[in-house]
Amino acid sequence: MKVTLDRVGNLRGYYPGETAGAPTFVLGSHLDTVPNAGAFDGVLGVAIGISLVQLLGGRRLPYALEIVGFSEEEGIRFGIPFIGSLGWLGELPARVLEAKDKAGISVRETIQRFRHGVDGEAPNEPSRRAGFLEFHIEQGPVLDTLGLPVAPVTAIAGQTRASVTFRGSANHAGTTPMHLRKDAAAAIAEWILAVEGIARSVEGLVATVGALEVLPGASNVIAGECRATLDVRHADDSVRNMAAQKLLERAEKIAGARRLTVEHWTRMNQRAVPMDACLLSTVEKAFLAVGLEPHRTVSGAGHDAMIIAEHMPAAMVFVRSPGGISHHPAETVLVEDIEMALRVGLTFLDQLIVEELR
Amino acid sequence: MKVTLDRVGNLRGYYPGETAGAPTFVLGSHLDTVPNAGAFDGVLGVAIGISLVQLLGGRRLPYALEIVGFSEEEGIRFGIPFIGSLGWLGELPARVLEAKDKAGISVRETIQRFRHGVDGEAPNEPSRRAGFLEFHIEQGPVLDTLGLPVAPVTAIAGQTRASVTFRGSANHAGTTPMHLRKDAAAAIAEWILAVEGIARSVEGLVATVGALEVLPGASNVIAGECRATLDVRHADDSVRNMAAQKLLERAEKIAGARRLTVEHWTRMNQRAVPMDACLLSTVEKAFLAVGLEPHRTVSGAGHDAMIIAEHMPAAMVFVRSPGGISHHPAETVLVEDIEMALRVGLTFLDQLIVEELR
Repeated sequence: MKVTLDRVGNLRGYYPGETAGAPTFVLGSHLDTVPNAGAFDGVLGVAIGISLVQLLGGRRLPYALEIVGFSEEEGIRFGIPFIGSLGWLGELPARVLEAKDKAGISVRETIQRFRHGVDGEAPNEPSRRAGFLEFHIEQGPVLDTLGLPVAPVTAIAGQTRASVTFRGSANHAGTTPMHLRKDAAAAIAEWILAVEGIARSVEGLVATVGALEVLPGASNVIAGECRATLDVRHADDSVRNMAAQKLLERAEKIAGARRLTVEHWTRMNQRAVPMDACLLSTVEKAFLAVGLEPHRTVSGAGHDAMIIAEHMPAAMVFVRSPGGISHHPAETVLVEDIEMALRVGLTFLDQLIVEELR
Repeated sequence: MKVTLDRVGNLRGYYPGETAGAPTFVLGSHLDTVPNAGAFDGVLGVAIGISLVQLLGGRRLPYALEIVGFSEEEGIRFGIPFIGSLGWLGELPARVLEAKDKAGISVRETIQRFRHGVDGEAPNEPSRRAGFLEFHIEQGPVLDTLGLPVAPVTAIAGQTRASVTFRGSANHAGTTPMHLRKDAAAAIAEWILAVEGIARSVEGLVATVGALEVLPGASNVIAGECRATLDVRHADDSVRNMAAQKLLERAEKIAGARRLTVEHWTRMNQRAVPMDACLLSTVEKAFLAVGLEPHRTVSGAGHDAMIIAEHMPAAMVFVRSPGGISHHPAETVLVEDIEMALRVGLTFLDQLIVEELR
């Protein structure tokens, strides 16, 4: 492969196809991860791409391959994720370019100062990119629970994030009888259980109250105010939007029945991103060809494939995360799962007809 | 009255009885309150005592009166409440004397430095103290809700305080399906509702979860750990102990059903202090004599009377707190309620036969 490093910090390997000017198919994932992380988040997908080229043993395909290791997927330095894949697509919007790190250095300055980047000078800039496939550890417990080594991803779930504040009356825990209380902690407790109950009742829906603050927060004072976050995800935007609305309405009902007030703000509303149907079909055929059931799964977390899917056909394959552990030093993969991922990948490349894509 | 200030900072007025050497009956409450408080917590009971002496207009009773304004009831400076009444009783234990304020000055040093204190030199040190009556604002909403100006207190409720920690698994809010979660926030929510439900089902019981901490506390991470406080109060120790045990057992059941673990520690177990039956009866007769229904109430908060009841017959009368507001600048009383309190107090003093006490 001809290897280049672009100005955004993406590491790119180009493996020519049978004919010059053939379209390029892209394999890859990200090189960065979070602090105190494990060894597989992101970089596994890059290593699988490189390994697939190795497994080709010099054999040429009817299309070129680009193996890409994206920079800055997590958003740790600038607080903005997917900078590598956005830059690779050639579209870093102003809000990204102006974002600054803790030292006050902007993305724009960082790119300008990055002397190793060779963008624009790359001798083998890929021809038309026909599609993208990302291998990534699942970072969740589903495959491990089902005993599956790998699984095709049908969509990246959409997300709603909201903040909810219940307001009652802070009062003396000893002198206020139960029936005269306006206890914000009891109200939010009722709502958290409702969130859990509604999420459990809808296939594929997850809803989480992960942060919670109680004011004034003293053992002998009834809570006057409780603030919570809500995170709702589903592969189907209409299901997610309906669920989020129902959960916020439930908060209002609970507050009303308890003579409290509630305020809520929707802070994020990110639509679901379906993977490309044609690529997904090719991935599933590869699963079947190597004797694996293609158990369709949905990604609850964002990935580079989500950004890239806006510009070209994109697909993902999840690799089992034993114990569902990720972003933690204990993050791991099974050697035999990687073998299955490589078999699926090689079969996929052999069966892929890039002309059929979009 | 002969007025003295003792070494602990208690302000004491002595009003002699008909005969020298007659037993002394004590009226009073505390002079201090909390920062950013109102104008009535504590000092109202001292003012009522002084007003009752004024209302006697020089008339002598078959017993002497001591009107006392206790120092340091709240425990703000040294973190230990009831220092004034403990010192007045002549028993400041070592744990109190050694307690230090933020500047590192101990209670012992503070007493030694207090030049205005005249303890031991008081010319009219009271004769045998026969009993104690404290008027105090309710600091709760019960009398206001019932439309009562004043009410006799039958007991100071006992208190159990505990800490409870649920431990589940912190996981990704997007990638962990509902059925594979061990969500500590959902578990503690279920328990908070159980606490409320059980407290509501037992007459006179109050139970409060006032402080709550969720770890790691991020909107997109399922709570791995939740810590809460529990405050349980009732006038009957057996009811309180049974309720506290039931609530902690319920925490274990909830954790077990959700495959989480729970730990709990009882941090305080303070028994209820009943008011003296004979004094209570005299108080109630005074209520009836002035045309008031003596609606018995329980104090959910601690008071000097609780400390004094260990040494002599003690009783309390609550004065309505409009809106139940206390420890707040909006704390107030109604003028007509004070008039009723004074009428009850004067009738009480006239009907009191100190020889009948203990």
